[in-house]
Amino acid sequence: MNNSYDIIVVGAGHAGCEAAAAAANLGSKVLLITMNLNAIAQMSCNPAMGGVAKGQIVREIDALGGYSGIVSDKSAIQFKMLNKSKGPAMWSPRTQNDRMVFSNEWRMMLEQTENVDFWQDMVVELILEGGKCVGVKTQIGVEFKAKSVILTNGTFLNGLIHIGEKQFGGGRAGDRPSIGLTEQLVSLGFESGRMKTGTPPRVDGRSLDYSKMEEQPGDDKPSKFSFSNTSILTKQRSCHITYTNDDVHDILRTGFEKSPMFQGRIQGLGPRYCPSIEDKIVRFSERNRHQLFIEPEGWETCEIYVNGFSTSLPEDVQYKAMHLIPGFEKAKMFRPGYAIEYDFFQPTQLNITLETKGVEGLYFAGQINGTTGYEEAAGQGLMAGINAHLKINNEEPFILKRNEAYIGVLLDDLITKGTTEPYRMFTSRAEYRILLRQDNADIRLTERSFNLGLASKDRLDKVLSKQSDIESVIKSFERTSVDPKEVNEYLSTYSSSPLKQKVKASSVLTRPNVKITELMSYSEDLNNSLNSFSEEVIESAEILMKYDGYISREKDVADKMMRLENIKLHDNIDFSKLSSLSAEAVEKLNKVKPNTLGQASRISGISASDISVLMVHMGR
Amino acid sequence: MNNSYDIIVVGAGHAGCEAAAAAANLGSKVLLITMNLNAIAQMSCNPAMGGVAKGQIVREIDALGGYSGIVSDKSAIQFKMLNKSKGPAMWSPRTQNDRMVFSNEWRMMLEQTENVDFWQDMVVELILEGGKCVGVKTQIGVEFKAKSVILTNGTFLNGLIHIGEKQFGGGRAGDRPSIGLTEQLVSLGFESGRMKTGTPPRVDGRSLDYSKMEEQPGDDKPSKFSFSNTSILTKQRSCHITYTNDDVHDILRTGFEKSPMFQGRIQGLGPRYCPSIEDKIVRFSERNRHQLFIEPEGWETCEIYVNGFSTSLPEDVQYKAMHLIPGFEKAKMFRPGYAIEYDFFQPTQLNITLETKGVEGLYFAGQINGTTGYEEAAGQGLMAGINAHLKINNEEPFILKRNEAYIGVLLDDLITKGTTEPYRMFTSRAEYRILLRQDNADIRLTERSFNLGLASKDRLDKVLSKQSDIESVIKSFERTSVDPKEVNEYLSTYSSSPLKQKVKASSVLTRPNVKITELMSYSEDLNNSLNSFSEEVIESAEILMKYDGYISREKDVADKMMRLENIKLHDNIDFSKLSSLSAEAVEKLNKVKPNTLGQASRISGISASDISVLMVHMGR
Ligand SMILES: Cc1cc2nc3c(=O)[nH]c(=O)nc-3n(C[C@H](O)[C@H](O)[C@H](O)COP(=O)(O)OP(=O)(O)OC[C@H]3O[C@@H](n4cnc5c(N)ncnc54)[C@H](O)[C@@H]3O)c2cc1C
Ligand SMILES: Cc1cc2nc3c(=O)[nH]c(=O)nc-3n(C[C@H](O)[C@H](O)[C@H](O)COP(=O)(O)OP(=O)(O)OC[C@H]3O[C@@H](n4cnc5c(N)ncnc54)[C@H](O)[C@@H]3O)c2cc1C
Repeated sequence: MNNSYDIIVVGAGHAGCEAAAAAANLGSKVLLITMNLNAIAQMSCNPAMGGVAKGQIVREIDALGGYSGIVSDKSAIQFKMLNKSKGPAMWSPRTQNDRMVFSNEWRMMLEQTENVDFWQDMVVELILEGGKCVGVKTQIGVEFKAKSVILTNGTFLNGLIHIGEKQFGGGRAGDRPSIGLTEQLVSLGFESGRMKTGTPPRVDGRSLDYSKMEEQPGDDKPSKFSFSNTSILTKQRSCHITYTNDDVHDILRTGFEKSPMFQGRIQGLGPRYCPSIEDKIVRFSERNRHQLFIEPEGWETCEIYVNGFSTSLPEDVQYKAMHLIPGFEKAKMFRPGYAIEYDFFQPTQLNITLETKGVEGLYFAGQINGTTGYEEAAGQGLMAGINAHLKINNEEPFILKRNEAYIGVLLDDLITKGTTEPYRMFTSRAEYRILLRQDNADIRLTERSFNLGLASKDRLDKVLSKQSDIESVIKSFERTSVDPKEVNEYLSTYSSSPLKQKVKASSVLTRPNVKITELMSYSEDLNNSLNSFSEEVIESAEILMKYDGYISREKDVADKMMRLENIKLHDNIDFSKLSSLSAEAVEKLNKVKPNTLGQASRISGISASDISVLMVHMGR
Repeated sequence: MNNSYDIIVVGAGHAGCEAAAAAANLGSKVLLITMNLNAIAQMSCNPAMGGVAKGQIVREIDALGGYSGIVSDKSAIQFKMLNKSKGPAMWSPRTQNDRMVFSNEWRMMLEQTENVDFWQDMVVELILEGGKCVGVKTQIGVEFKAKSVILTNGTFLNGLIHIGEKQFGGGRAGDRPSIGLTEQLVSLGFESGRMKTGTPPRVDGRSLDYSKMEEQPGDDKPSKFSFSNTSILTKQRSCHITYTNDDVHDILRTGFEKSPMFQGRIQGLGPRYCPSIEDKIVRFSERNRHQLFIEPEGWETCEIYVNGFSTSLPEDVQYKAMHLIPGFEKAKMFRPGYAIEYDFFQPTQLNITLETKGVEGLYFAGQINGTTGYEEAAGQGLMAGINAHLKINNEEPFILKRNEAYIGVLLDDLITKGTTEPYRMFTSRAEYRILLRQDNADIRLTERSFNLGLASKDRLDKVLSKQSDIESVIKSFERTSVDPKEVNEYLSTYSSSPLKQKVKASSVLTRPNVKITELMSYSEDLNNSLNSFSEEVIESAEILMKYDGYISREKDVADKMMRLENIKLHDNIDFSKLSSLSAEAVEKLNKVKPNTLGQASRISGISASDISVLMVHMGR
């Protein structure tokens, strides 16, 4: 049997799929082992990709040559750019997806990727030789060898499903748990922990009364995730909004005495930002309603996802409470909500490449690292795939810095801070979020990925021409003047003071609310010089011009920090010898072993004065 | 919670889906409970529907208003009418299907069926009241009530998967087994047994060398299963044929000492007519090669099904042996073949309606009854669904006789003879197979189903007009004469003696090889009177005219047998009082409790003289 590969990826969830694709596209021979080949990249929870900060990650993955953006576009049933009323750092693309199509498209893309082989089976053990991970053993007794192994087990490790007082093993509803790996890893010295997450009931859309809800159509002019040539949606399916109320909450409370969470049966910590409905009732007891998004699961299916109503209360309580929600009076359930507990590993046990510190050749990516969310998982998978490939080819690791990508923030946060609750990305986690926008992910990342050999020449060419187009637009703005006769009427619609004489278009653009496309429709000169450019280019140029001040300032701060960031700490510093460090700092530094001063500065409990001590020690 | 239904169907395999659809379309409120809503009507084994005798069943299901034919047409990637060179009793439609699309289409059809609710969960217990089955309990602890319960658990009951020396629980690769139900049923007095079946490895089509195989394209003029308006394939995917050889067999033999079958680890009896490759090597040791059909799993996927290579030998032996098959030198496996053992219940414990004799309101359909094959399962499901509905509405049962349908043969065989090995349909099982053709399934069955309220008015109208068209064609043939000048050239191509003078077209048609469409292209009169009729009508008329003798003779025999058949045996005959019966007959008759003399006559061990005794007793 061909049991020898460069890289084995365990698990075909979002992390595993990106890892396999990236490593294979770089040239590694990859084996993707997963428990069920019919459930590749299954969306375990909500049928949606992106959203605040997560949408940026998807665009970054796409810019780097990953597949999540393309698959999301191909399976989208609705597109929305969230936060369009806020600054561009906050703009976040989000799609509602057809769950089946999403999974099928991922499978097709992987099948069409040379160098990816598939094996349906459960990995039950790692094979180690001389402290290195060199392969895996499966449930049916096969051994596969490889130079590296990437574990992306998601919520499957000793997965335990809870509904009310019932509990049973499972990696996700309908799937088996993965048994054995945690125990082996712990015996190898890894520290494991327990987390939990939950999902809402699924209902039959034919039984809902949408007239009692608010319709939430997609964007009038839908955009998309991928910078490649995927198509724009020409039709979309709407979501709907409805609300819980006091009666719903009262019924839910009757189930609290059987709640696995409140009664202590669930030990793992849940995602603070995706709380269950029972959590919300308790934590925000002053609120008498909570918003619910009623989301279709696909183009044709009548299955509906009740976003915001995640719960592990007994199913009869779920059912009774649900029936008091406007529009849900006659709702039929397909299955109840549930919570799942699973093992994770503190990501402080990883290097920035996602290789474990303890076992060479072994990488962890995705929910196994204590994160939550498809996008976070996919981002990690991509980076693990890239770095596993680079390492076995003796090449420098590929590291994204905090000012380069949300993915950089993600990995840096994980390995330096660890996490005590499911980690999810937010814009607030990024210090330089005006730099890490969704519109410039390609400009930030494609060239770097192209240099690696991952992003295609096509992608690079597109970026380069986009960049030069953006510069042309900016130049036009600096060159072209606008005429009061033409634009004063427009300015008055925003109560902006009229021009007295012709001025450079760029100076008008910095006024609040003024938009290039609108200005173009008033100024003939501007229109003539810009109408050949794409909307994407015009929008990017507009952001750069309107937010120039912020952007430059943040770049400066980032540059300064990066100088600090880049100061490497030697591998063999014995922090306990640095007597001026606080005791806590010594302990944390010895544990985390940061690579750079920047990383050290972000370890919780490390103070500015500790950093100064380190700088002195480094001779700065 | 809405926990009260007319009918609960347990399992959404082929049997469960047809049962749910039929009962719901008749007006029952149905709950379909299944372990994984993403795997509805999954094809556990080969991605194909129909074939010899099975294709007739699919057409019968379709004629009756079931969904299997429509779903097969919508998901077909290739169509073939098998046995076209034999008599029309043997013609058997078969499709190669896209596994994913098949499952999706079934789900969509069920979602669009009013009265079907869904619940994802595992049923672990039946609820009984006063000896009647009135509901089920599920793994997550929900109780659902109903007037009837139909169990269609397929291969899941205590499913145990074997590969070489490894074994582990599972209902099918990647799925959990169903635990608990068998034990309860046995405690209720049911007799359970153990069967096994197997499946071949799946491989990566990109790694095969098709130039070393024979291409097997679909039919030039593909037909379809459904009598409704599904479309005809406009493009098709080819299968390929290759062969094992002595070297392959030698390698396979090296695995025999680890074979779960040969070493006695598998207790259950396997399907004699779908033997594993190791079985074939042993049973047909004189043959130095076996044919393999290399079948794509869908339109786009590269996954390939190696039909004919079913095996449960250790996966390294499978792999090594496979590589010696022409075209498979570099084959990559997605997963190995395996065998599965599962519990079934002797179908002699059922009435002809598929209701169990032991527990009122409880029905069994599909593989749980010891059958094998999607079509056999679907046929049983449909009949169980119909009859469960009729019973709770106090209507007469719907019974198909052996001269009416393969489905009639199937149910009658099962309940009277039982089965000691997985039961699969063959044309040889039907005494009246010239009557039970694929082309006339609609004529045989649609009106009966329409009278029940299942087949639609549209379907009936189509059948009626088809019938009258067929009669017109036959009349034309009896009326129209053909001219020697026109047709002698044609007749000579079949070395058929030339006509001396004009004769009735019907007399020419009975000559060997002569076909209506060909005759039409020579005879202007014939062409004028027939060219407005559809091919389907012309083909049916041709069969009726060419095989008139056989058909009439078989009808006569059937009529005679049916008179016997229809002689009802009273429920309360104490066979031991009939002293002239053989001891064996008494025992068997008391056990099976046949409803009619016909049924009694088919019980193995019942002789013609036993039947005479019964006839005398009945006063005939
Ligand atoms: C009930 C539930 C609720 C959730 N709720 C939310 C939410 O509200 N918000 C949110 O952002 N995220 C939520 N998530 C998390 C989201 O599903 C995950 O973050 C994401 O799927 C993680 O991707 P992954 O690739 O790490 O793992 P997964 O998507 O879980 O994939 C793991 C893969 O590994 C395979 N596998 C596991 N073990 C083995 C083994 N030993 N051998 C072979 N294959 C193996 C599995 O079959 C699977 O294909 C939820 C998940 C669940 C299950
Ligand atoms: C490995 C393998 C090889 C096979 N090889 C062949 C072959 O070579 N030729 C051939 O003709 N046939 C073969 N078959 C058989 C074919 O798959 C079955 O005949 C057919 O699928 C039976 O249909 P069914 O509806 O009875 O059951 P299945 O298709 O098995 O469906 C059973 C359904 O019930 C559900 N279920 C089971 N228990 C529960 C429960 N307690 N609660 C809720 N839901 C439950 C399952 O999730 C599933 O959806 C094979 C099957 C397997 C698994």
